[in-house]
Amino acid sequence: DSGALKQVARILNSGLSPSDIAHLLESSPPRQRALLWNLVDKELEGDVLQYLNEDIQTEYLSRLNARELAYILEDLESDDLADLLQQLPEKVIAEVLETMDEQDRQRVEKVLAYPEDTAGGLMNTDTITVRPDISIDVVLRYLRQHRALPPMTDSLIVVNRRDEFIGMLPITKMLVSHSTATVREVMDTDVEPIPVTLADTRVATLFARYDLISAPVVSEDGHLLGRITIDDVVDVIREDADQSLMSMAGLDNDEDTFASVWTTTRRRAVWLGVNLLTAFTASAVIGLFEDTIAKVVALAVLMPIVASMGGIAGSQTLTLVIRGMAIGQISGANVRWLLNREFFSGILNGVLWAAVVALAAMAWFQDVLIGAIIAAALVINLVVAALVGTVLPLFLKSRNIDPALAGSVILTTVTDVVGFMSFLGLATLFYA
Amino acid sequence: DSGALKQVARILNSGLSPSDIAHLLESSPPRQRALLWNLVDKELEGDVLQYLNEDIQTEYLSRLNARELAYILEDLESDDLADLLQQLPEKVIAEVLETMDEQDRQRVEKVLAYPEDTAGGLMNTDTITVRPDISIDVVLRYLRQHRALPPMTDSLIVVNRRDEFIGMLPITKMLVSHSTATVREVMDTDVEPIPVTLADTRVATLFARYDLISAPVVSEDGHLLGRITIDDVVDVIREDADQSLMSMAGLDNDEDTFASVWTTTRRRAVWLGVNLLTAFTASAVIGLFEDTIAKVVALAVLMPIVASMGGIAGSQTLTLVIRGMAIGQISGANVRWLLNREFFSGILNGVLWAAVVALAAMAWFQDVLIGAIIAAALVINLVVAALVGTVLPLFLKSRNIDPALAGSVILTTVTDVVGFMSFLGLATLFYA
Repeated sequence: DSGALKQVARILNSGLSPSDIAHLLESSPPRQRALLWNLVDKELEGDVLQYLNEDIQTEYLSRLNARELAYILEDLESDDLADLLQQLPEKVIAEVLETMDEQDRQRVEKVLAYPEDTAGGLMNTDTITVRPDISIDVVLRYLRQHRALPPMTDSLIVVNRRDEFIGMLPITKMLVSHSTATVREVMDTDVEPIPVTLADTRVATLFARYDLISAPVVSEDGHLLGRITIDDVVDVIREDADQSLMSMAGLDNDEDTFASVWTTTRRRAVWLGVNLLTAFTASAVIGLFEDTIAKVVALAVLMPIVASMGGIAGSQTLTLVIRGMAIGQISGANVRWLLNREFFSGILNGVLWAAVVALAAMAWFQDVLIGAIIAAALVINLVVAALVGTVLPLFLKSRNIDPALAGSVILTTVTDVVGFMSFLGLATLFYA
Repeated sequence: DSGALKQVARILNSGLSPSDIAHLLESSPPRQRALLWNLVDKELEGDVLQYLNEDIQTEYLSRLNARELAYILEDLESDDLADLLQQLPEKVIAEVLETMDEQDRQRVEKVLAYPEDTAGGLMNTDTITVRPDISIDVVLRYLRQHRALPPMTDSLIVVNRRDEFIGMLPITKMLVSHSTATVREVMDTDVEPIPVTLADTRVATLFARYDLISAPVVSEDGHLLGRITIDDVVDVIREDADQSLMSMAGLDNDEDTFASVWTTTRRRAVWLGVNLLTAFTASAVIGLFEDTIAKVVALAVLMPIVASMGGIAGSQTLTLVIRGMAIGQISGANVRWLLNREFFSGILNGVLWAAVVALAAMAWFQDVLIGAIIAAALVINLVVAALVGTVLPLFLKSRNIDPALAGSVILTTVTDVVGFMSFLGLATLFYA
């Protein structure tokens, strides 16, 4: 058995890349995960950690003391190191920084100074810069003095004497230029440097829109601070898209798929509790009409149809608007048009399905009145769902509340209340 | 007014990049969109088209004849061109290909030969290849003969005499090597080339995991066919993540946010119809217990709580599993553990919220029995929801059905039926 373990360890440490190991750990239930983690070489641990999701990172990091942390983390790039450190308590961060040498510490502190979800938190400080008036030939000789260039170096950054950003010198462009040309003649000057405070999602949009591999980051006064590379941006893109999906189900983006029973139960409990309030609100509305239901039991049979069709219609609009907001398509200028479109589309689908449901209800209960009532309630609920589904996410965002997280609960509450209220209310008017 | 239009046209065509123009078009309601599109320079149209979403692409492309198409599309890279062409009818594709010169046609036909959602559909054929036994110096001189290198060229591809893939020569590595070293000495040989038939989502996983900028694509017998670049992979990643979100609401990934009332109504109608079947199924179950409800109207008031809590709990599990499957974490090996975890977590949350709901129901209706019944029904429904939420997406995927699209409808049907059946069924046993 220990022979088998040794073999697994060999494959793990020499056959797989750190990101493969991280993926394997993330895909393993707790016991196997602990076992595998023990087999990972000490020198690889830092590399593996940076690819793990935050939930799991925090778990491992919290078990180590400052000296162990410093040892594990020493070879990481400054942005990845800062990401990991930011999950630790202030006191531990200070201890880890103390064990590092002066140069490394300054490198990391520069990145730590910016929030994780901004350009500053994404950037690396390992830039290669050149001056505009030297020749390509000199640049090539200068590069040759390096043992290796930083990963994802597709361009060198051109700065002036005061370290202010001037332009980008793409390596591919340099390779097809005359060696006597100057950097100034070859460089691109139409590149907009990224302000260090820009939100990471905006950075991702820029990378996707302009097909960037790396981009310079500057301070407010134009000084070069570092550069952002596509590998870190790809992670932002993945997380962003993931987040809407997970939030809409009340889940966390960083959630460990194989979290323990206890952790899972605790997290889900919160969301179920919030939704229980919605459910009780709906019940309270139904409770107002107990007498009517006692007289016409068919109402109890049909009422979930009105509520659930409203919920479905509303969540379609909600999802479309949340997605449109996330990719920057929806703003004040076009909301009116959208609201109109949703309103008319809500009426059309309301009328269509109201007719179908009305006919079915009449046939089922041999009662024309109940068909007319459910039809009216359906049209009302589908139109309300369309309008709320459009306006709600924009309102929530303006209040800095995550529309994906809060949107679906609030919307369901509205469609339940309006659905039961309109159906049972109309029924009370006509049957009482 | 025409002066203002001219000014808009000037800004549009000289101030914005093609991807900016595409974003502006996507963010505009139909009338403004048509107006803006007319202002875009003919030479830019092809470039802009490739950045638009598929819905809008198809709309514009269908208005053009083969000659206009060929003119607009002539400057695109082969993979982007193939993407656009694939949306046209066979006959139009053939016509467009006929108007192209021999070399361009062959280039495009190579890519068209592979499905859009495979490595072959993503690849470009504009590779720069070198032989292993020449020196770095010769490579640099060879590169200098080019006017420009293809976009995203971070590595040259090393092939043998028979055009079989041997290794990658990163440009950054070449720049720090001795000019007398041979390509063979400098190149990386631990790069796994991508098989041309690999699914695009798998390609995206490889790029994200190994931080790639470009990767070689080979045929089954190892011949180099082309290369895939990160810009196209970023699009795949965005679409993939988007797809789960949109599918769960019954929406299409390529859906135009500003589609017309008519298009929107038609698409939504289908989803509402499917969900109406779910709603009627739930009603049919309630209908079985009309007599019990007539006796105890409180049942009608409380029954939506059981169904909705089951739906919420189930959709949390469903979303987690769908996400885990999408990023390749969940497979046969760990499903059992997951099922166990969900089972126990379902019991714990079931018992917790059953207690809360039972107490509330007893207090509300002054009836101990109804509290006990709703508690039992809640535990049953939450456990069923957890189990179905885990197994259903795996089952659907094994049948090649999109779990995000079909999963939520089927799950809701199950939690509604089980919720109403267990609550009203138990009530019938004890109150009848």
